[in-house]
Amino acid sequence: MAPMRWWGWGEPGVSFTHEDKPELRAFILRHLGVDVEGPTARRVAFDDITVPEPSLPTDLRAELEAAVGGQHVSVDALDRVVHARGKSLRDLMRHRRGDIGRLPDAVVRPGSEEEAEAVLRAALAADAVVIPFGGGTNISGSLEAPAGEPRPVVSVDVGRMDRLLEIDEASRLARVQAGVLGPRLEEQLNARGWTAGHFPDSFTHSTLGGWIATRSCGMQSDRYGDVADLTRAVRVVTPAGVLATRPVPSTSTGPSVREMVLGSEGRLGIITEATIHAHRLPAQRTILGYLLPDWRRAVRAMRAIAESEAAPSVTRVSDAHETQLSFATRRRPSIADRVQSGALRWYLERRGIDPEAMCLAFIGYEGPQEHVKAQRGLVGRIVREHGGLCIGSGPGELYDAKKFDTPYIRDFLLDRGALGDVSETSAPWGTLPQLYDDVEAAANGAFARLGVMGYVMCHLSHSYHAGACLYFTFAFRPAGDEEDDGLEAYDVVKSAIQQAFVDSGGTLSHHHAVGTEHARWLEQDISAPGVAMLRALFDGTDPGANLNPGKIV
Amino acid sequence: MAPMRWWGWGEPGVSFTHEDKPELRAFILRHLGVDVEGPTARRVAFDDITVPEPSLPTDLRAELEAAVGGQHVSVDALDRVVHARGKSLRDLMRHRRGDIGRLPDAVVRPGSEEEAEAVLRAALAADAVVIPFGGGTNISGSLEAPAGEPRPVVSVDVGRMDRLLEIDEASRLARVQAGVLGPRLEEQLNARGWTAGHFPDSFTHSTLGGWIATRSCGMQSDRYGDVADLTRAVRVVTPAGVLATRPVPSTSTGPSVREMVLGSEGRLGIITEATIHAHRLPAQRTILGYLLPDWRRAVRAMRAIAESEAAPSVTRVSDAHETQLSFATRRRPSIADRVQSGALRWYLERRGIDPEAMCLAFIGYEGPQEHVKAQRGLVGRIVREHGGLCIGSGPGELYDAKKFDTPYIRDFLLDRGALGDVSETSAPWGTLPQLYDDVEAAANGAFARLGVMGYVMCHLSHSYHAGACLYFTFAFRPAGDEEDDGLEAYDVVKSAIQQAFVDSGGTLSHHHAVGTEHARWLEQDISAPGVAMLRALFDGTDPGANLNPGKIV
Repeated sequence: MAPMRWWGWGEPGVSFTHEDKPELRAFILRHLGVDVEGPTARRVAFDDITVPEPSLPTDLRAELEAAVGGQHVSVDALDRVVHARGKSLRDLMRHRRGDIGRLPDAVVRPGSEEEAEAVLRAALAADAVVIPFGGGTNISGSLEAPAGEPRPVVSVDVGRMDRLLEIDEASRLARVQAGVLGPRLEEQLNARGWTAGHFPDSFTHSTLGGWIATRSCGMQSDRYGDVADLTRAVRVVTPAGVLATRPVPSTSTGPSVREMVLGSEGRLGIITEATIHAHRLPAQRTILGYLLPDWRRAVRAMRAIAESEAAPSVTRVSDAHETQLSFATRRRPSIADRVQSGALRWYLERRGIDPEAMCLAFIGYEGPQEHVKAQRGLVGRIVREHGGLCIGSGPGELYDAKKFDTPYIRDFLLDRGALGDVSETSAPWGTLPQLYDDVEAAANGAFARLGVMGYVMCHLSHSYHAGACLYFTFAFRPAGDEEDDGLEAYDVVKSAIQQAFVDSGGTLSHHHAVGTEHARWLEQDISAPGVAMLRALFDGTDPGANLNPGKIV
Repeated sequence: MAPMRWWGWGEPGVSFTHEDKPELRAFILRHLGVDVEGPTARRVAFDDITVPEPSLPTDLRAELEAAVGGQHVSVDALDRVVHARGKSLRDLMRHRRGDIGRLPDAVVRPGSEEEAEAVLRAALAADAVVIPFGGGTNISGSLEAPAGEPRPVVSVDVGRMDRLLEIDEASRLARVQAGVLGPRLEEQLNARGWTAGHFPDSFTHSTLGGWIATRSCGMQSDRYGDVADLTRAVRVVTPAGVLATRPVPSTSTGPSVREMVLGSEGRLGIITEATIHAHRLPAQRTILGYLLPDWRRAVRAMRAIAESEAAPSVTRVSDAHETQLSFATRRRPSIADRVQSGALRWYLERRGIDPEAMCLAFIGYEGPQEHVKAQRGLVGRIVREHGGLCIGSGPGELYDAKKFDTPYIRDFLLDRGALGDVSETSAPWGTLPQLYDDVEAAANGAFARLGVMGYVMCHLSHSYHAGACLYFTFAFRPAGDEEDDGLEAYDVVKSAIQQAFVDSGGTLSHHHAVGTEHARWLEQDISAPGVAMLRALFDGTDPGANLNPGKIV
């Protein structure tokens, strides 16, 4: 797969467009004051960027080349720019205007664990900084070298390590190299009748190692578990050698070292391999659409499903704002028409469902036919008890087909001078309704302070025994023409939302990690002694602070 | 509840006896060469033990008394002896012969988190050692002060902190003080219609804080999760202040600090409170007995159940040896008679089930009636496919009624000069059959080397996606009369089993923690860099090595 665009998400040739969505232009104009058919913002051309020469000591370069082979040590300008950051809105905004930050001095691509070991040894011997790099999709600032880092910076791209090494069919475990991208992982597993069941939004461009390093969660994690649940063993190249845990289902060997690697964002070493749960491809897989009358009842319905014996693979429900955007992005006559037209409209009215308040839900089922049928029955009953109704498999198929396209929308908006981004949290069920109100108020308050039109919307993306993940998306066009204004305005909105998370009993991030973007809220989330414990772990494991310094704490 | 016996398990007045089990005497005589009606071994009387005076500096004592009140600082001899160790076989053997080890100099009982903080502050100021103490049931040596520890040793018994503080009914979360014993926790939850669903063998005498500190697992953990799954938030008094995590369902805030507390065995601080999952008391609860034709097919059946959509609360199956002991411990005409008598025997023969090879399983179901019925149907089908049959609820009820009595058997055997103990592991399904054979061979090899008769048996106690827990029990009578011989012989057998675990791909312990008993296998399990990471965490959090030193690493 080609590397991602240096200035935005995804592959060259793929992008989001409003042109096949007849209602979207009016919707965006109404809510953001942006005409998507107006002039688009210019991006700096790559050739106009001054890319500084790499500062790579000759000895270190020779050692790295000895470790991985000359062709796998790159000092190419584009390569270094692509590896300089992830894909946070802040990353995209800065890259697009030519502010490329502290570039890595080399991009090194080990092809095996032994090569990764040799790379780390060489880097440590030269007191260089090592930043492990998977797919480069991180949106929390986990991939950028500290500004003004005086030591050589080596980006270790593990993308060559992309093989499924072994399936233990009896144990339903797959041993996989950590640099594998989502599609390549599924392709190798599917070919033998298996799936990992891990599908984050970033799936097409993110890696197993990256998922582990950031505690990723996927769209079907309600059934398959998040990456912490499905990762049974890890292999990590650390300064003290290769950390290797065993693929045992459970263990009481002190604090879990496996769990220390999960979410470590490169601070402990280079993840080279993992043993993960594999599942037989399900006999049946369905995602059904449902309409719930309003957000409060929608959340209560999801809670009731979590409390029941039903075990759907997806439990996702959008608030009214996101539901309305969903309808505005339809390409052809669809559910929205049915809502606005005769029979269904009459039915909604009879059920007391206000189209302005209603919430669109997707609930997924997987497994043997009989199981899927029983689950659908259970969930259908609960939805009806909460005043909702099933609208069939059409909307679910549509959602399923375009589920990985969302990240392209940010580039579409940036091209038009508008900012769109996401923030997600999780909280106990009892806390969620107030947290939702607080976050909405915080975002709208920030828009008001900035004097801009803005839009904030939310979906509940995953359900647990005791709570759920709320995933917020917000967009606005910053006032003024200064490019700096954009970042400052972004900080106002993003900070307001993050602060509302921790003030209202949520966590600072459910599955997007900490990086540098969220680090300042960490102590409010896990308390000062918690931060001190993380420091103890990082400092003790990496006494020279060579491993992705400045991230998390 | 009264403190446990100083020399053995459980409450005074409760014990295991062979007298109501007509076949047990012959069974034990046949397999261990021990006549349980022969003379019983003498224990040293408490009054014959020389209990050294506590070495508690006057200032420290004053500070501790100021922290918790004079009546909650105890230097009583019995109190100190009871708090000196847990209840491992090694602990019992040494205590029984009057070898009481390095006693704590004081037992301090804080009644609140604030008092626990004051206790820790005082102890650190005096450079004392602090050993948190819950129910004292640990069997891995996690509670004993290092031999010859020159600093004052303070046992911090959290038993006064035993209240259910709050149930968040919407979130199904209970906030509970960590010193609560199992029965008191369930009593408080049950009174309001809830359960925690955590029932380790030690349930009657162990605490929530102890479960967390050792990564405990309970009999119904297949449904409710182990303590790591059900603990959403912790509060821990650490040298840096109170560590407090949030009760969020999931988070990607770096390596999980909550997970660092799980299994920390007092090395990070004193656990004072936890927020745990609560469940509505199930409408129905059933444990059914099943017979499987042999161990291989029994394990395959459990694996098939784990792979199915069935979600039983208990999946337990004994090997043939344990099945035979089960039948030998019957009190009245029971399943064993039915096996040996007409109709069932004929049926077993027709099904090709050899009574010598057959394995007794207990599978539990909980939830709404309809759910239980569907689960039973699913499991019944799988058991039949593996050549087994359901033998109804009678044996399950019997198991359920006496499930917490097992630990008393060790005292019964010790009284008769025989040693009985347990070792458990977990491993991937594909590894389990060979691991089982290896452990049997290791134990029997050890018996042979010692020239003793011995018995080793096993049950699969918990099932997971990718593997299961195997729980071994072994017993033998050491040769010779020297008391020391017993411990040496015990080490030979126990070490052989533990080494077989790690050599065969298992973990050194599934739910009994590391302590000092298992520490020497830790590096073989989690690798040297893993041990180094634990050291980094402990050393950084507790630079003076005051917190339960010498445990885990």
